[in-house]
Amino acid sequence: MNGAESLLRSLIASGVDVCFANPGTSEMHFVAALDNVKGMRPILGLFEGVVTGAADGYARMAGKPASTLLHLGPGLANGLANLHNARKASSPIVNIVGDHASTHQRYDAPLSSDLVGFARPVSAWIHTSTSARTVGADAARAVQASLEWPGRIATLVLPADTAWDMADTVAPALPKPSPATAPEASIDLVAKRMRSGKKTVILIRGKALEEQGLRAAGKIAEQTGARIMCDTFFPRLQRGVGRVKLERLPYFAENVVDTLTGTELMVLVGAQPPVSFFAYPDKPSWLTPNDCQIAVLSHQHEDGIAALESLAYALGAENAIERLAERRPIQIDLNGKLDASAIMRIVARHLPEQAIVADESLSSGFAHYDVTAHAAPHDFLNMTGGSIGSMMAVSTGAGIACPDRKVVTLQGDGSAMYILQSLWTQARENVDVTTVIYANRGYKILTNELKRVGASTDGMAAASMFDLTNPTLDWVALANGMGVEAIRVESARAFDAAFASAMKQRGPRVIEAVI
Amino acid sequence: MNGAESLLRSLIASGVDVCFANPGTSEMHFVAALDNVKGMRPILGLFEGVVTGAADGYARMAGKPASTLLHLGPGLANGLANLHNARKASSPIVNIVGDHASTHQRYDAPLSSDLVGFARPVSAWIHTSTSARTVGADAARAVQASLEWPGRIATLVLPADTAWDMADTVAPALPKPSPATAPEASIDLVAKRMRSGKKTVILIRGKALEEQGLRAAGKIAEQTGARIMCDTFFPRLQRGVGRVKLERLPYFAENVVDTLTGTELMVLVGAQPPVSFFAYPDKPSWLTPNDCQIAVLSHQHEDGIAALESLAYALGAENAIERLAERRPIQIDLNGKLDASAIMRIVARHLPEQAIVADESLSSGFAHYDVTAHAAPHDFLNMTGGSIGSMMAVSTGAGIACPDRKVVTLQGDGSAMYILQSLWTQARENVDVTTVIYANRGYKILTNELKRVGASTDGMAAASMFDLTNPTLDWVALANGMGVEAIRVESARAFDAAFASAMKQRGPRVIEAVI
Repeated sequence: MNGAESLLRSLIASGVDVCFANPGTSEMHFVAALDNVKGMRPILGLFEGVVTGAADGYARMAGKPASTLLHLGPGLANGLANLHNARKASSPIVNIVGDHASTHQRYDAPLSSDLVGFARPVSAWIHTSTSARTVGADAARAVQASLEWPGRIATLVLPADTAWDMADTVAPALPKPSPATAPEASIDLVAKRMRSGKKTVILIRGKALEEQGLRAAGKIAEQTGARIMCDTFFPRLQRGVGRVKLERLPYFAENVVDTLTGTELMVLVGAQPPVSFFAYPDKPSWLTPNDCQIAVLSHQHEDGIAALESLAYALGAENAIERLAERRPIQIDLNGKLDASAIMRIVARHLPEQAIVADESLSSGFAHYDVTAHAAPHDFLNMTGGSIGSMMAVSTGAGIACPDRKVVTLQGDGSAMYILQSLWTQARENVDVTTVIYANRGYKILTNELKRVGASTDGMAAASMFDLTNPTLDWVALANGMGVEAIRVESARAFDAAFASAMKQRGPRVIEAVI
Repeated sequence: MNGAESLLRSLIASGVDVCFANPGTSEMHFVAALDNVKGMRPILGLFEGVVTGAADGYARMAGKPASTLLHLGPGLANGLANLHNARKASSPIVNIVGDHASTHQRYDAPLSSDLVGFARPVSAWIHTSTSARTVGADAARAVQASLEWPGRIATLVLPADTAWDMADTVAPALPKPSPATAPEASIDLVAKRMRSGKKTVILIRGKALEEQGLRAAGKIAEQTGARIMCDTFFPRLQRGVGRVKLERLPYFAENVVDTLTGTELMVLVGAQPPVSFFAYPDKPSWLTPNDCQIAVLSHQHEDGIAALESLAYALGAENAIERLAERRPIQIDLNGKLDASAIMRIVARHLPEQAIVADESLSSGFAHYDVTAHAAPHDFLNMTGGSIGSMMAVSTGAGIACPDRKVVTLQGDGSAMYILQSLWTQARENVDVTTVIYANRGYKILTNELKRVGASTDGMAAASMFDLTNPTLDWVALANGMGVEAIRVESARAFDAAFASAMKQRGPRVIEAVI
């Protein structure tokens, strides 16, 4: 058994059995080991952003890390933006980054770089293996580090000689970290403040946005009249018919301020106080009212579900009946024009039970988010770190994690171009993803932002920076070029037919919705 | 005048008049300033790897930096791999990276990251502007830093408020750095050693690979019998008919060892002693014969051209007649099959005068490189940092720098997928680039490397990691999807016709050569 096999067997022993990969020469022994060791599913991405974004989506849905296999510093560098997003999503990921053999590192060969320097801004844990005999144990530690609550990025650097030298051990799994328990004092304090009748917002992030946490939050809301909310960009939320409905904070700062006006108490469950996404001249970054008290029920590393259940009990709400979203009739004029509103209504209408919706529709989607709150129960995944282009990769990984569930990606056309290579992996692995491209032929959000930052100009140079019509992207051709079936639609009726059909079939599809 | 305008005017005053850009909200004032300030050409890339790769290609051909405009840490992160390549090419680049306003940075908004941490591994100079009133001076310093010989990456971080606050100055250009002069003692020592009759290799890198340096090297070779060589992966080389011909070091370590066997003196002109690209078990990384003397004629930061001319003088070679490459008849069997050899012969046959060839044909191209040594005079650009996927972006920038010259990109299909978005910018700017895709439907080089590292396996899992046939990429569809004309050819005759036609027309074209 060489180091690569020891690594692979140890990852599998620790429960990591999917590897999103874009390997190169320094990872060849790891690749060869895939044939000698059963139990690790390798999934090739043709660009490293696919690899890391897919690992993010996998982690959000599987609740455990996938491994990535990346080629030295530059291979890691290509995956960094989606690792940034994954870090903001608190997704557990174990990066395996091949490096030059330890004997080769002194020579400054072309691919030499400050690999650990690249890894540092996104990794909570970094280790460089020094011997084939320790890589198994290093892998077990990496998996454990990635599972530090609520989820971290662990980067294990594997010099080529630690993969090809002989090893003798498979490391057993280390204990899986648990979340800390929120102190009783925090729960008592929040309960006391809420009992005083303050107008309260409970802002929730993390695992507590899944069904169990939401039920507790719903009981508290029902009993006390508190509003329950989530961030604009949460990693994962369970919603739809039969689920407790939350308010989502709006994107634009002034809308958040309006939403929070009058709030006297902000209770945080794994969340940070809301701040604006960007700064704007003469607009506030801090969006909580100045006279609002802020109380932390649970920090990120604490168990938010248990904290909400304890709070419900402390408030005598444990037997309250939480209000659940009901199916609502959705008005759609199929003779009307195809726009962002029509798209979301049609998506809501046909969304199958337990679908996974990965949203990067940005300027097109924000306003119509609520429509899907009354669709079939589904998981909603958001971009989290603001680095656009992630969701086609995230949805690929989500589909790998949940092969029996339909994935729907709502994707702006500008952001779709960043990591379009995701479609090839979807085709290769027959991932059941339908990608809706909102083809508005521009970086529409920036046209808005230009005005909002007070940088208005009517000139051509600026306008050309947001314009994708010269030439116009042909998403049917691009998808077909990567082996994915695609259709372009220009009317609500045609989109309805295409989306309904996609929901009934399996496998990847792209619908270019011209709006 | 706000900070953004001051920045832009100062960049222009320092001679930087092209900006490859992928802006976001934090860069909106810079974008708006493009309309208020004439003299900066903005060029949009739909992915940041296009932006940084194009800046690399531009710098190699223009001999001066372009600016890039990138969106916070993740935008920079997406451009890092090509900045790694640019760093290895010693290309001057001025990155302008927008950041959150200084007042906003404390809030850990979604796009907050360790921006300087991302920048550090690739940047020789990093500065964060602290006031709109200093950004002009900061820009002038960045340009100067990028021009430190032979070329560096300078990264200027621009918090949004330093762009929108008022400024009052345009900074004048700072003195342009010159290369240091190699010490006379170095020249004397090399001359003395060469006079002793040792079997000598002169290994050259940098500006000395342009015509003037090569003439001096050619005179020395003619006079002394020394062999003159360049690295496997050089940033830029002037070659073809009427130019001094160099030997290029082979890619594989054992071939380099063979090539250098018997060498008694290795003279370095801006180069490092040759080392293997990767380490292999039981193969050496250090490739110079053990008993070979190594002498540095000039370091990277010194003037290699002057050093070669001084050496020629010291050796009495200043009047020697250097041997120049002559046009040779190229044998092509147009009825034969289309393979890597036929492609290179046909390229050599039709290559127009003063073309720019950007090569990332990798496993397909190495063996046939010499064929083009006897083609029309051209500049040959190589990938330099080993991060594949760069050359379609590099060729885009080279074409922007030299609008009157034909650019030919020789591109493997696996590597082409990394930054295929380059094609859209080529279409938008009507860059005169013909891209030849060597469609062998796989990461062919890795199939070779798997055996070479001793990790052979006949299993399916490993093989699937190098295989691009499931699904097969359709480069005609992909190119068309981004507005670029494309054709697929499967015979030598068809490729000959397609390539000849492309050489006679202007504008971007893709030829998918199925081999």
